[in-house]
Amino acid sequence: MIVAMQEQATEEQIDAVVVAMEEAGVNVHRTTGQFQTILAGVGPTAGLDLTTFEMLPGVLHVHRISAPYKLAGRAFRPEGTVIEFPNGASMGGQQIAIIAGPCAIENRDQIFTIARCVRGAGGGFLRGGAYKPRSSPYSFQGLGIPGLELMREAASANGLAVVSEVMEISQIEIMLPYVDCFQVGARNMQNFNLLRALGEVKKPVLLKRGIAATVEELLLSSEYVLSGGNYDVILCERGIRTYETSTRNTMDIAAIPVLKKLSHLPVVADPSHGTGRRDMVPAMAKAALAAGADALLMEIHPNADKAVSDAAQTLYLDQFEKLVTELRVIAQAVGRTL
Amino acid sequence: MIVAMQEQATEEQIDAVVVAMEEAGVNVHRTTGQFQTILAGVGPTAGLDLTTFEMLPGVLHVHRISAPYKLAGRAFRPEGTVIEFPNGASMGGQQIAIIAGPCAIENRDQIFTIARCVRGAGGGFLRGGAYKPRSSPYSFQGLGIPGLELMREAASANGLAVVSEVMEISQIEIMLPYVDCFQVGARNMQNFNLLRALGEVKKPVLLKRGIAATVEELLLSSEYVLSGGNYDVILCERGIRTYETSTRNTMDIAAIPVLKKLSHLPVVADPSHGTGRRDMVPAMAKAALAAGADALLMEIHPNADKAVSDAAQTLYLDQFEKLVTELRVIAQAVGRTL
Amino acid sequence: MIVAMQEQATEEQIDAVVVAMEEAGVNVHRTTGQFQTILAGVGPTAGLDLTTFEMLPGVLHVHRISAPYKLAGRAFRPEGTVIEFPNGASMGGQQIAIIAGPCAIENRDQIFTIARCVRGAGGGFLRGGAYKPRSSPYSFQGLGIPGLELMREAASANGLAVVSEVMEISQIEIMLPYVDCFQVGARNMQNFNLLRALGEVKKPVLLKRGIAATVEELLLSSEYVLSGGNYDVILCERGIRTYETSTRNTMDIAAIPVLKKLSHLPVVADPSHGTGRRDMVPAMAKAALAAGADALLMEIHPNADKAVSDAAQTLYLDQFEKLVTELRVIAQAVGRTL
Amino acid sequence: MIVAMQEQATEEQIDAVVVAMEEAGVNVHRTTGQFQTILAGVGPTAGLDLTTFEMLPGVLHVHRISAPYKLAGRAFRPEGTVIEFPNGASMGGQQIAIIAGPCAIENRDQIFTIARCVRGAGGGFLRGGAYKPRSSPYSFQGLGIPGLELMREAASANGLAVVSEVMEISQIEIMLPYVDCFQVGARNMQNFNLLRALGEVKKPVLLKRGIAATVEELLLSSEYVLSGGNYDVILCERGIRTYETSTRNTMDIAAIPVLKKLSHLPVVADPSHGTGRRDMVPAMAKAALAAGADALLMEIHPNADKAVSDAAQTLYLDQFEKLVTELRVIAQAVGRTL
Repeated sequence: MIVAMQEQATEEQIDAVVVAMEEAGVNVHRTTGQFQTILAGVGPTAGLDLTTFEMLPGVLHVHRISAPYKLAGRAFRPEGTVIEFPNGASMGGQQIAIIAGPCAIENRDQIFTIARCVRGAGGGFLRGGAYKPRSSPYSFQGLGIPGLELMREAASANGLAVVSEVMEISQIEIMLPYVDCFQVGARNMQNFNLLRALGEVKKPVLLKRGIAATVEELLLSSEYVLSGGNYDVILCERGIRTYETSTRNTMDIAAIPVLKKLSHLPVVADPSHGTGRRDMVPAMAKAALAAGADALLMEIHPNADKAVSDAAQTLYLDQFEKLVTELRVIAQAVGRTL
Repeated sequence: MIVAMQEQATEEQIDAVVVAMEEAGVNVHRTTGQFQTILAGVGPTAGLDLTTFEMLPGVLHVHRISAPYKLAGRAFRPEGTVIEFPNGASMGGQQIAIIAGPCAIENRDQIFTIARCVRGAGGGFLRGGAYKPRSSPYSFQGLGIPGLELMREAASANGLAVVSEVMEISQIEIMLPYVDCFQVGARNMQNFNLLRALGEVKKPVLLKRGIAATVEELLLSSEYVLSGGNYDVILCERGIRTYETSTRNTMDIAAIPVLKKLSHLPVVADPSHGTGRRDMVPAMAKAALAAGADALLMEIHPNADKAVSDAAQTLYLDQFEKLVTELRVIAQAVGRTL
Repeated sequence: MIVAMQEQATEEQIDAVVVAMEEAGVNVHRTTGQFQTILAGVGPTAGLDLTTFEMLPGVLHVHRISAPYKLAGRAFRPEGTVIEFPNGASMGGQQIAIIAGPCAIENRDQIFTIARCVRGAGGGFLRGGAYKPRSSPYSFQGLGIPGLELMREAASANGLAVVSEVMEISQIEIMLPYVDCFQVGARNMQNFNLLRALGEVKKPVLLKRGIAATVEELLLSSEYVLSGGNYDVILCERGIRTYETSTRNTMDIAAIPVLKKLSHLPVVADPSHGTGRRDMVPAMAKAALAAGADALLMEIHPNADKAVSDAAQTLYLDQFEKLVTELRVIAQAVGRTL
Repeated sequence: MIVAMQEQATEEQIDAVVVAMEEAGVNVHRTTGQFQTILAGVGPTAGLDLTTFEMLPGVLHVHRISAPYKLAGRAFRPEGTVIEFPNGASMGGQQIAIIAGPCAIENRDQIFTIARCVRGAGGGFLRGGAYKPRSSPYSFQGLGIPGLELMREAASANGLAVVSEVMEISQIEIMLPYVDCFQVGARNMQNFNLLRALGEVKKPVLLKRGIAATVEELLLSSEYVLSGGNYDVILCERGIRTYETSTRNTMDIAAIPVLKKLSHLPVVADPSHGTGRRDMVPAMAKAALAAGADALLMEIHPNADKAVSDAAQTLYLDQFEKLVTELRVIAQAVGRTL
């Protein structure tokens, strides 16, 4: 950490800051300039609340100079993490993973039709919601366990792995027999108790970036899972909230290469939530792939306009099949396979 | 709801949209202009996903024309909601409520000293965290039940009501004997299961606005609690995330009069989290009061610089006492009492 | 400036950074920690592009530790700047200044009626646009010189000073005989040639914050005017663009005390543009005053609904008169006069 | 336009709104629902200030249902605009255009070395700044005319077209002999007088999106140029300002397909300003290309770290050459040539 003192700071103020830093277990090196004094603190500052120092008399700014996460950092596993799934699919390696399915599981026909389509297009993962977080209490809230059963059956019949959203700790036990990967939604990215509980589970976690979360906060949230002993975390860029309204969210495509640089964890992009508009999904899926994403997550439905939720951003099955064919060419162009 | 068709929309496309709207239970009125056709839908659209219609062929835009919440709306209780607490304090009436305390309960001395200070300044509510949501898994996580016991004791000894944050459903039962008001933190504003569970509790809920939540989303979240039968919800403005970094968050002071206009629920402002800087808390507390807030929530600590969390935004006790005196004058200037 | 090196940085990389800093005229002090090396640079860095250093091999982060502006800083004139106008009014002192008028000057009757109203309410400044920046080329663009003549006449007849927007350098000469204060609109906050030209003028400049400008950028823009020798700059908070749409912009009320702390320049708040809604102007005017604003700028019109621009945010004259009366009470509550 | 009345609106209020709409030249169709009345207005509303209606008593919301721009709209030229340059290069067709050069022209050697590199890589456009908008008055401000002369010479010697930024009206005449395309910077996107002046010029205009501008505002600004008779406008996505700080701006890649859908104008992406970081430029250039950009604008410099401005985001020449080779493969994958 660095503490930059104000130009007018007195020696007493500087001393008091040095003492406070040392009490926090930090070694302090002082640089006295003509106008300004700078205190460089070296030591274990990851768990430290730096704002504590910002308000001390005479302090101008406090800067953190090391990343506040450790296990999620690229240095922890420079070669990158590759996560293997029971059906033989993987994320984080040479192969681009395709994760597709409906926003919500609705019935047997729907989910089997979709599973066959995903399989046919060469995808390895079936996604679908059994528990739905909805902003309005008057909207459809999901099928629950019967939905999970249907999805598991449809996925296994087609050699697919299952990805589904967990909304609270009590659902982990219930979902465990049915899913291969727990998805944590954007609204729960900082539900730290849930993250901690998932740290003790032996299945991968797909962690979505919160709608106003920074890249650093996403990595800190992944650290909750990693520090519990579960090293199989997939980071998901799904759009952030900005002033622009021509798309539902603003997809932060640059977060993909930034995350790949800062962390060893696989990165998945979700152009469906990222744009909220079916007609923009293909362009953004291609962009994410070109920018270095390891996987793509897309909402698809045989009757997209009648989907019980997220209809506007859901691809029809033929649109999805065509898109995967186009993505395959781009994957080759960036040295990947699909 | 309003569906504006594209200029090039065909009669077949228009008919298909009309059918889709009618299937959703909406009565349709058609306006055919020289260039453009407009379909006005009247009926129960609160639970409807309007994006379903946005992607139909030939559609330009879909607009919602009625608020998607009901019980939270001003029309439901035009005279405004006043919430009474066991200690005689209230929120939402003529009297401005002062809610103050440490970010985290640390020990007996700390919380008793603070409780006496709040009482002395004329405040009615003691706040303090026993369970802390922290972005880093390496930070202090709260005292838990012993913390709640200490706070209850300190509050009761000083005639104060207790406000404390609940982070998950399982904590509701545990906290019930100790608190007078459950606080839902910004990160949990869209934890819908938690909100639903709090709808069945018979104690008030102080609901903080999410860091990137709109005013409408805050009202929709309150609707989850209200629709469970718990009508005692307090809405809290605590700053939103923007590009500006001179304060930790950007306090959306305008949200206060907007919420008072749209809803009958009391509105509290939190200048501590809203600014993240002790030196800006007084100005923003005054601004919030002048803009129509019913209550102010502030972090205070006898040794603010050593507070285990949120130190930078925490007021010293003498700063707090001085501020309340100044706020009292402004309360009078806007026709309130404190 | 501070350069934090990566943990893996080599001695060669560190040396190269030291050389680059010294070449830029900066004295370097090195701190070698167990894991990380920190280089503190002391010297004249105000005109330096720090990103130059950020991309050098082995560098983690570069932090600026001194403010990049000088003349605008509070330290330059700790007692604060008070600007005096020919009509006896002032900004920045004990007295709160009221600046009011129509968005656009429309005709003689309109501007004279408004001038009498401002005078009657105790305001000292008449504002009105003769040149209008409009997002659409199909909207009304202002009356030009005849508008300026009318406004000057109306102001002088009522003892008011004139504030009007200048959109480009060529208008400065034209406007000079008519105005007492040049307003620079939000869209021109970083029109550096215009700012430089206004630095050579001997009349005050009211500089509006850009819709996405930081507080620091606003101060840097004021530095363009100040460094030309014109020390009479007034900073204006008028709302920033965020994701929230219940008001047209999000008024950053905290910017007011932040600017007052960082700078000696007077600060004016514009609740009309800040909210875009007439019904929210009174609450936000009060909030701005309570937060420490030196002046308030408001759009008023005898027939507000028929105003040729900004109708929705324009107060009727009786609303304005009532509001000023209420503001007077709040001014007293915060130790000011109006 | 659509006016949705409040549920409590009286017949008198509804009549008053109808009258106001008719006075504005709009035909009104009324839909009376059980709870709410809707007024659909059909007619020429492009130049109308809809907020005028929003504040009328009894009005809930006013929605615009047709785009406020005309000449920029896709419908005006459904086949898309292709702009031809004197050197034979084009933008908007099958061929991807590469525009590269230094942030600022520094000297003869620099610009000639760069021009040869651009030519060698197969690019058609040389860019470079002779007039620089800088946030700080203490930074380098550009070479002016001598810089333009050097760039023209270097470009012509290598068969390249010249793109350079114009900052104010008086520079248009000066620059005309030297440039093939006027760039309007992000800070000037709403400098309407400048746009209007460029509407009368017979050379293409590359219009950068403002740092907080919506897609619609960018199109409205292009309308200023188009409505003056200059139909050769290129729209540029160069990143918007959000809360995320891991890149300098957040590149809104989705704006590319959105603009291509809404407008017939060519779209260029600027990953240098979009990210502010050299190491992220390649990934984002690829992403923009995959998403449908017609051209890429990049900052390059033989000694990037010593560039007098924007050093951190500037590619070395060998990095640029390698990147163009990779982009060529992606161009093929999306059916384009480079």
